[in-house]
Amino acid sequence: MAETMLAVVKPQAAPGAEIRDVSIPRIGPMEVLVKVDVASICGTDLHIYNWDRWAAGRIHPPLIPGHEFCGHVAAIGNEVTTVQEGDFVSAEMHVACGKCLQCRTGEAHICQFVKIIGVDTDGAFAEYVRIPESNIWKLDPAIPKEYASILDPLGNAVHTVLAGEIAAKTVAITGCGPIGLFSIAVARALGATTVFAIELNEHRRKLAEKMKADHVLDPSAGDVTAKILELTGGSGVDVVLEMAGHPDAIRTAFDIVRRGGRISLLGLTSKPISLNFSEDIIFKGITIQGINGRRMYQTWYQMTALLKAGKLDLHPVITDRISMKDFSKAMERLTTGEASKILVYPNGVK
Amino acid sequence: MAETMLAVVKPQAAPGAEIRDVSIPRIGPMEVLVKVDVASICGTDLHIYNWDRWAAGRIHPPLIPGHEFCGHVAAIGNEVTTVQEGDFVSAEMHVACGKCLQCRTGEAHICQFVKIIGVDTDGAFAEYVRIPESNIWKLDPAIPKEYASILDPLGNAVHTVLAGEIAAKTVAITGCGPIGLFSIAVARALGATTVFAIELNEHRRKLAEKMKADHVLDPSAGDVTAKILELTGGSGVDVVLEMAGHPDAIRTAFDIVRRGGRISLLGLTSKPISLNFSEDIIFKGITIQGINGRRMYQTWYQMTALLKAGKLDLHPVITDRISMKDFSKAMERLTTGEASKILVYPNGVK
Amino acid sequence: MAETMLAVVKPQAAPGAEIRDVSIPRIGPMEVLVKVDVASICGTDLHIYNWDRWAAGRIHPPLIPGHEFCGHVAAIGNEVTTVQEGDFVSAEMHVACGKCLQCRTGEAHICQFVKIIGVDTDGAFAEYVRIPESNIWKLDPAIPKEYASILDPLGNAVHTVLAGEIAAKTVAITGCGPIGLFSIAVARALGATTVFAIELNEHRRKLAEKMKADHVLDPSAGDVTAKILELTGGSGVDVVLEMAGHPDAIRTAFDIVRRGGRISLLGLTSKPISLNFSEDIIFKGITIQGINGRRMYQTWYQMTALLKAGKLDLHPVITDRISMKDFSKAMERLTTGEASKILVYPNGVK
Amino acid sequence: MAETMLAVVKPQAAPGAEIRDVSIPRIGPMEVLVKVDVASICGTDLHIYNWDRWAAGRIHPPLIPGHEFCGHVAAIGNEVTTVQEGDFVSAEMHVACGKCLQCRTGEAHICQFVKIIGVDTDGAFAEYVRIPESNIWKLDPAIPKEYASILDPLGNAVHTVLAGEIAAKTVAITGCGPIGLFSIAVARALGATTVFAIELNEHRRKLAEKMKADHVLDPSAGDVTAKILELTGGSGVDVVLEMAGHPDAIRTAFDIVRRGGRISLLGLTSKPISLNFSEDIIFKGITIQGINGRRMYQTWYQMTALLKAGKLDLHPVITDRISMKDFSKAMERLTTGEASKILVYPNGVK
Repeated sequence: MAETMLAVVKPQAAPGAEIRDVSIPRIGPMEVLVKVDVASICGTDLHIYNWDRWAAGRIHPPLIPGHEFCGHVAAIGNEVTTVQEGDFVSAEMHVACGKCLQCRTGEAHICQFVKIIGVDTDGAFAEYVRIPESNIWKLDPAIPKEYASILDPLGNAVHTVLAGEIAAKTVAITGCGPIGLFSIAVARALGATTVFAIELNEHRRKLAEKMKADHVLDPSAGDVTAKILELTGGSGVDVVLEMAGHPDAIRTAFDIVRRGGRISLLGLTSKPISLNFSEDIIFKGITIQGINGRRMYQTWYQMTALLKAGKLDLHPVITDRISMKDFSKAMERLTTGEASKILVYPNGVK
Repeated sequence: MAETMLAVVKPQAAPGAEIRDVSIPRIGPMEVLVKVDVASICGTDLHIYNWDRWAAGRIHPPLIPGHEFCGHVAAIGNEVTTVQEGDFVSAEMHVACGKCLQCRTGEAHICQFVKIIGVDTDGAFAEYVRIPESNIWKLDPAIPKEYASILDPLGNAVHTVLAGEIAAKTVAITGCGPIGLFSIAVARALGATTVFAIELNEHRRKLAEKMKADHVLDPSAGDVTAKILELTGGSGVDVVLEMAGHPDAIRTAFDIVRRGGRISLLGLTSKPISLNFSEDIIFKGITIQGINGRRMYQTWYQMTALLKAGKLDLHPVITDRISMKDFSKAMERLTTGEASKILVYPNGVK
Repeated sequence: MAETMLAVVKPQAAPGAEIRDVSIPRIGPMEVLVKVDVASICGTDLHIYNWDRWAAGRIHPPLIPGHEFCGHVAAIGNEVTTVQEGDFVSAEMHVACGKCLQCRTGEAHICQFVKIIGVDTDGAFAEYVRIPESNIWKLDPAIPKEYASILDPLGNAVHTVLAGEIAAKTVAITGCGPIGLFSIAVARALGATTVFAIELNEHRRKLAEKMKADHVLDPSAGDVTAKILELTGGSGVDVVLEMAGHPDAIRTAFDIVRRGGRISLLGLTSKPISLNFSEDIIFKGITIQGINGRRMYQTWYQMTALLKAGKLDLHPVITDRISMKDFSKAMERLTTGEASKILVYPNGVK
Repeated sequence: MAETMLAVVKPQAAPGAEIRDVSIPRIGPMEVLVKVDVASICGTDLHIYNWDRWAAGRIHPPLIPGHEFCGHVAAIGNEVTTVQEGDFVSAEMHVACGKCLQCRTGEAHICQFVKIIGVDTDGAFAEYVRIPESNIWKLDPAIPKEYASILDPLGNAVHTVLAGEIAAKTVAITGCGPIGLFSIAVARALGATTVFAIELNEHRRKLAEKMKADHVLDPSAGDVTAKILELTGGSGVDVVLEMAGHPDAIRTAFDIVRRGGRISLLGLTSKPISLNFSEDIIFKGITIQGINGRRMYQTWYQMTALLKAGKLDLHPVITDRISMKDFSKAMERLTTGEASKILVYPNGVK
């Protein structure tokens, strides 16, 4: 095996990234080395690339980013028992401490001391990535590589949809980035009877239609709240999945949820949001949930089972496939909003 | 309006039934008179027809049986506000007392003092049926009459499937009578990833295949338990819906459910069932539920929403359509096992 | 029986109220006339008395206010079956429509068309009050009248505490009005291991101590958040019951709840509340609930059972007992904050 | 430190046990050596001592039994970070595999490949015991050693009581061995309003009274079912905790549970149990749960918090304290039924 590999490297505390030749990671006794087949790009990677305020506060260069991928096991540590060389795998990139209250009570996805591979340590935009055995997710070869490379954000969608009842419910999704788009498919597959997708961006609205949302609404073109109340007999939707993180979308979420409904919040926002607690929450008797990551490992079982059963058609979301050497061009495509999910191939698109 | 109507009447405490001309029911201030479009036949109706032990202990002739139907409102009482003449409706035929602990805590489907229309009072195998307003279920005209006439057993299926988690679960259904067959469609629509249908009768197995069960298994043709363990990686299914009420099926249910899984029991049996509590229940940490009727009225909202959204294809279950005057012939078809769900038209098949 | 009775009457759209001689209500066939033994005063009654903006928008004088009480059945309508003359009763004063989605799915406490006796129709500050049979709650004579007269706000407390897990949890209650004080007793009785009570008013803090809160904290005297984090090993409390409705208290609620914890909101506020959704809700993965009224009638069963079993000592909350003719004086005692729960006796304190 | 220690050893596949001088266990990098302060004896230990059929099929001598204890950390492996020498600890003795479906979805207590320390490997009836760091439970020194030594069975009780709703519920406990007795205290502390304890043995009934069960019933002295129906207004109890494992007790459990209630099964039985599924389960709409071990580690947090808050008085259950050298005498005391929980002190009773 070679000593070095190609990787996307954020070399210093500044915008940009480089393709470099770096050492292949060495693994410990309970770690696994994975040869990356396909990785995919998350909004977080764009923040790191552009070196915004969040990135400057969190990231310590040099760093190889990338936390969505699939690949095949290239080597295993001495004590690894659950996978072997050649296995097809992905991984949960949130490495939970395993020792805090949350970790010890089935809530590892909100671990107090989590480290994220690709954010806090070297990630998957490389030919090889090192993963603790505990976080490896072995995959059935029946699952297509393209889907296997996007399990992280698909898991966000599955976790959000399943954070409460969804069967036979009406659902509105505010914001149609990749996770919002995935959520359309997931909600439909799990028995939501009507899915409303709300999105300002035309490209994304077109993708929402391809994902078969029942109603795709443009807030700039009319009163979304009035429309949804009309289409739900005046009562509003049972469930809102907030995935935009924009104050207007959040305002809409509270306006369209029915009495006794739920709002699951995934979209991050740095702006303060103002609510009228009495009217918006208390009189309506609603439930609001903060959603983070995906459950370890219930969500992984769920999404793997759904994919293997062919319940999810996610193809419209995958808009671009690039060779890793073209990483910077992908960043541009994301910035202009033309691309949704971009797949990255370390050794050229196959 | 006429004074009399045709109806199926069980005239006395003996096998059989007659088509008779009887008075149209008079309604009170909080009651609704419904002109029956289509009714459907339940196994219970066969028990009443054959006058078995259960029937002899419960039924007080003369009685008009029938508790599955849809129709249009013909007249309403003075205090009725939620429907009007001409509305398309079905009804929950379990009339709960509204005053016991169960009724006052959201569990009216297991009311201590329930009366069933079509069992304890005159039912729907007639041109007209009288229903308390509280139990009327108004229907969207988009729902086909054929489906509207089978909401009672479809509700059993929806209630059973949704008695626990179903999304992304593997499910086995033991017994493929109409409710078992409906459950295949419901489980699939709500995100079950693999549905096993287990049934001895060849006619029913064929219907299970038409309902798109992933695996249809014949217990007389091989070891069903071994097959299911093999197909679930050795662990068993997440959920068993027991709808046969036969000791062998129940035995299979406990053998194929995984550790931590659930068994929802709907199928009635008069025979004692013997279990090894330690091995069958405790060490496996399973949950067992007795399922009765359908939730008032959560299940009605759920199934109506699913039907309106086109999520359920139930056509294969409807095997026969008869004119009410041929009621006795329908009983024969059910006895020989050739028919699954038989629709009854009071004024001839349309 | 007499034709007239004494009652507290809000005669016109202006501050104040009068004691007047008015007709005893006539009951319909499904209604119950109750002779009031004891009523109690809610903050809502003070709003009505003072004729604030909320009252001006909601109340239509003339009105007899009062929605917390107990008494004995004086007469029943023809169709009433569940109580008889002489029975000891209280009542749920939210009269739900029984026909909306919420009512038909076990969520009548958030009915879309609710009417409140004592707010929308004549209430219990009178010698007699008229109640629909459906809303009567029959009481075991073992329950003291004093407690029987405060079931409405006690129900708020029980509903809030039981809106999520409470057994073996740490709980903070922000705001120690009567419902907050009741919640201390309820949380303790249901297995909360540590109860923090947070309150600015010294009178109320003293009552919180009498209710046996483990820690009673004064936000004006030190950093409540720091103190609670210290006493919970840095992680924060499992549950916050927000009963102050004040922006500072709400801010504290979000600061002290642990990752994965819940905030149940009961305290009403007319001011907009500003939150940082990412930090306050999403990263912490918390659940927020709007709490309204009390569950019909689970909460009533629960609180009745707790009272009958002697699990709740509520005496410290009952600070005043007055004769109905002194109603206006009670309003003053509430305004100055000296009183917590004031009991009103229609025919003089007994 | 010494090289050898005293321990209870089952030397061969036959009844009995010996006190022997054996090597102190050597610990690996992720293990902890604990000096045992107090251990306690479980019914399982009696099975091992008596070498019954279960023991002969499961135990591989030589073995040091004992799986309930507390002690102080004597040494830690190189990679241990969560405890240090001198810490006061107990441990979860079920060592879950961490890799099966159940372990990865928060159900490690029903792990498919669990090993039990004291059953499958050397346990705590010794001066020292070796524990994986993952299973160590660090204790607040405020918790008395006596209670710290019985966390395993107390955890069974807490897990069973909290397997469903308990607040404001009526509860019956069938069988008053140590776990049944603990359950009385736990149910009361968590808000059960009435606790019925059912037990044939007079010694145990006296202990149940000391634990403050509301009603202690002797099945040999009258009709327990009739009595409980009478005391619950004819409806039966909300919850049954079955801890006897005897067919008569199980029969009673199904007779006394109310419609919609739950039965949580903990008591093991090797005899087949016969039920009438229709009458016993389905018409009543009950839920039955198999209960195993205790949740890792929710139950540990819960019981530790309850003990630290002084919510549980467990003293009546601890009937005997012995020096480890008198182990065989303790076995006799258990066999005659005079003792409930027996504490074992490796170096003499302190």
